[in-house]
Amino acid sequence: MAQLTGEYPERNQKVPKTEIERRIALFRSYLMEKQLDGAFLLQNVDIFYFSGTIQGSVLFIPCKGDPILMVQKSLQRAKEESPLERIVPLGAKGEIAALLQKAGISPPLSAGLEMDVVPASIYFEYAGMFPNCRFSDISGGIRRLRMIKTPYEVDQIRKAARILDKGFSEVKTIIREGMTELEVDGHLSLIARREGHMGVLRMRGWNQEMTYAHVLSGESGSVTSFLNSAHGGSGNTPAMAQGAGFRKIGRNEPIGIDYGVGVNGYVGDEFRTLVIGDLSGELKEAHHCAVEILQALAHAAKPGILCSDLYHLAESMAEKGGYRPFFEGHGEGQVNFLGHGIGLEIDELPVISPWSKASLQEGMVIAIEPKFVFPGKGLVGIEDDYLVTSSGLERLTLTDQLLIKI
Amino acid sequence: MAQLTGEYPERNQKVPKTEIERRIALFRSYLMEKQLDGAFLLQNVDIFYFSGTIQGSVLFIPCKGDPILMVQKSLQRAKEESPLERIVPLGAKGEIAALLQKAGISPPLSAGLEMDVVPASIYFEYAGMFPNCRFSDISGGIRRLRMIKTPYEVDQIRKAARILDKGFSEVKTIIREGMTELEVDGHLSLIARREGHMGVLRMRGWNQEMTYAHVLSGESGSVTSFLNSAHGGSGNTPAMAQGAGFRKIGRNEPIGIDYGVGVNGYVGDEFRTLVIGDLSGELKEAHHCAVEILQALAHAAKPGILCSDLYHLAESMAEKGGYRPFFEGHGEGQVNFLGHGIGLEIDELPVISPWSKASLQEGMVIAIEPKFVFPGKGLVGIEDDYLVTSSGLERLTLTDQLLIKI
Repeated sequence: MAQLTGEYPERNQKVPKTEIERRIALFRSYLMEKQLDGAFLLQNVDIFYFSGTIQGSVLFIPCKGDPILMVQKSLQRAKEESPLERIVPLGAKGEIAALLQKAGISPPLSAGLEMDVVPASIYFEYAGMFPNCRFSDISGGIRRLRMIKTPYEVDQIRKAARILDKGFSEVKTIIREGMTELEVDGHLSLIARREGHMGVLRMRGWNQEMTYAHVLSGESGSVTSFLNSAHGGSGNTPAMAQGAGFRKIGRNEPIGIDYGVGVNGYVGDEFRTLVIGDLSGELKEAHHCAVEILQALAHAAKPGILCSDLYHLAESMAEKGGYRPFFEGHGEGQVNFLGHGIGLEIDELPVISPWSKASLQEGMVIAIEPKFVFPGKGLVGIEDDYLVTSSGLERLTLTDQLLIKI
Repeated sequence: MAQLTGEYPERNQKVPKTEIERRIALFRSYLMEKQLDGAFLLQNVDIFYFSGTIQGSVLFIPCKGDPILMVQKSLQRAKEESPLERIVPLGAKGEIAALLQKAGISPPLSAGLEMDVVPASIYFEYAGMFPNCRFSDISGGIRRLRMIKTPYEVDQIRKAARILDKGFSEVKTIIREGMTELEVDGHLSLIARREGHMGVLRMRGWNQEMTYAHVLSGESGSVTSFLNSAHGGSGNTPAMAQGAGFRKIGRNEPIGIDYGVGVNGYVGDEFRTLVIGDLSGELKEAHHCAVEILQALAHAAKPGILCSDLYHLAESMAEKGGYRPFFEGHGEGQVNFLGHGIGLEIDELPVISPWSKASLQEGMVIAIEPKFVFPGKGLVGIEDDYLVTSSGLERLTLTDQLLIKI
């Protein structure tokens, strides 16, 4: 396969062998704890995490012994991309049991499956192939393992952050009065792809999907959607029902831009409020409150603090400012979280919410996004990504401007 | 909710009530045939098909009586978007049985579920909520129902085709030697979004995903990927492993562009071969063979013809031209289909393949895509979308140029 990395070789990188080895070792401890003989990994993101490739494959990680990657397509690329030792071709799915046996792996009597994403019909296939096996859901274990990032993983998010910063600084020279949200969204796509955004933002949640950006101006910012987010937007059709629409951007109204890009699988996620002219006093004060919340959280957060405590700190500041009804959405659009982990998926753990029982741990990467939604007027707020270090939060996103005036 | 349609009101349209009524009536006959008391529709695309909204909902369609849409978020938008009569709020999922009862619907003893896409954990939830119910997979029935399009649905695909045509005619003025594939991809995204592409191309197949376009120049066109497609492309990272990469486009090499956009949920899908300068004799002849195959199929196809016969006709023409080893991919990248249905998803029925038992029916919309892949040299071919009418195929895509020279 051609090495086609152009001027950004660091934006097309294979996962180092040491990363894969660490992940598999930790996952094996989890399997041991759960008393499982092994696990079948079927979802492309999880397969990528444990093997370094998303080629069409079934990955079996036994509790003891080497993992085996059984590849339908492309075997050649899987071998080039993955540092795993045992990579074998897989014809029909019916061959899986035989391939395990050939590799000296007894048919598992207990095995993990990613029940949160694997379709029911595929579950039934596996149950049929291994009739003596008890299958358990291992999605929680995988999500908790993926929650803690290594320096390699943080580096990928830093690369994504550079693209996001370039996008914000470039798009502010492009936006003009009368331009549609969709056109701005298109420019953000162009910048992202030109700079090496991999082209998808993956979400694990059932029925959740995203475009590269949300561009929501004025009243659009207060349109609620099915998305598990403080803002939805009209979108430009009920068939998608989120994000940018044909609305033309006006002067002196907030333009909320939520922008995501992925580099080597890892997502960066940033939100800024832009405005042609200036915001009204009310919205400017609310934006200022969002900035203060972000700064307070960035200051307070450190390993050991409960995510629910962070949420309550933010909520009390919103309350004090008189903005509680508008905090993270309004009416039925209000969501009860103000941050989340990011990594290979944009909806990773932990969730910074009142019901979360998690506490921050070193190596987590979280997006914190205090936002206020005012019905009919729009959306103001801010979002940055942070690494949890032993001494507190380190900001990964790079954009210094808090409110971007055009 | 603001009506934010700008200059293209037809690109932001609600599904007409008559469409929804027709779909539900046909689906009820299917339920009757399968002897099911009803079906739970959980996937957002299927919910959109039967209700006109993708707001976070559970749709129950009983075999007899009115459907009920139970909405978690946003109730307001669901009511605005869907012509269904019974739309009720849903708090926790545990309330579903009670809501059915309240609506006078007895707990089903047999019910359909979309087992091909619904995660195993959600299947278990439903099995727990309705312990006396036998659940069956209804995905085949839904896919066969969705296979036949109404004039309303065809109109949406025609709108998508207009955007695709605009994209091809605009991008040929933008592409220059030395530009990366990713930058071209970005321009295609910009055009698509500006013109009202809804922002996602949905695929039903497990683990399948797409960017808005594939832009594959020279040798990139022959890089195999996990995607169920004749071409994969390097992508710009093993984490995505398909589509455009940082490769710079050169003179006299094929630039294969597969472009998809969605309008009101419906996808248009078109492929053209572009070149700065001209193709070598070998590739030009192969391209010509692809065009001849497309024309022969467009001429031969009519209601009643077997999809496998169409495939064999194409295959025999490829064989005759001496291109069989390069037909629809090469080596392990070769796929055994040359066309597929399009609609709300890009991988709809029928599949034009040697193993398909389907025959063409009036109202199907199919993309036919004869392509040849030459290792190290690239990809040439063509793809257009067609409506099956009583008298044969009617082309929906609009681009007249077969080989686009720059």
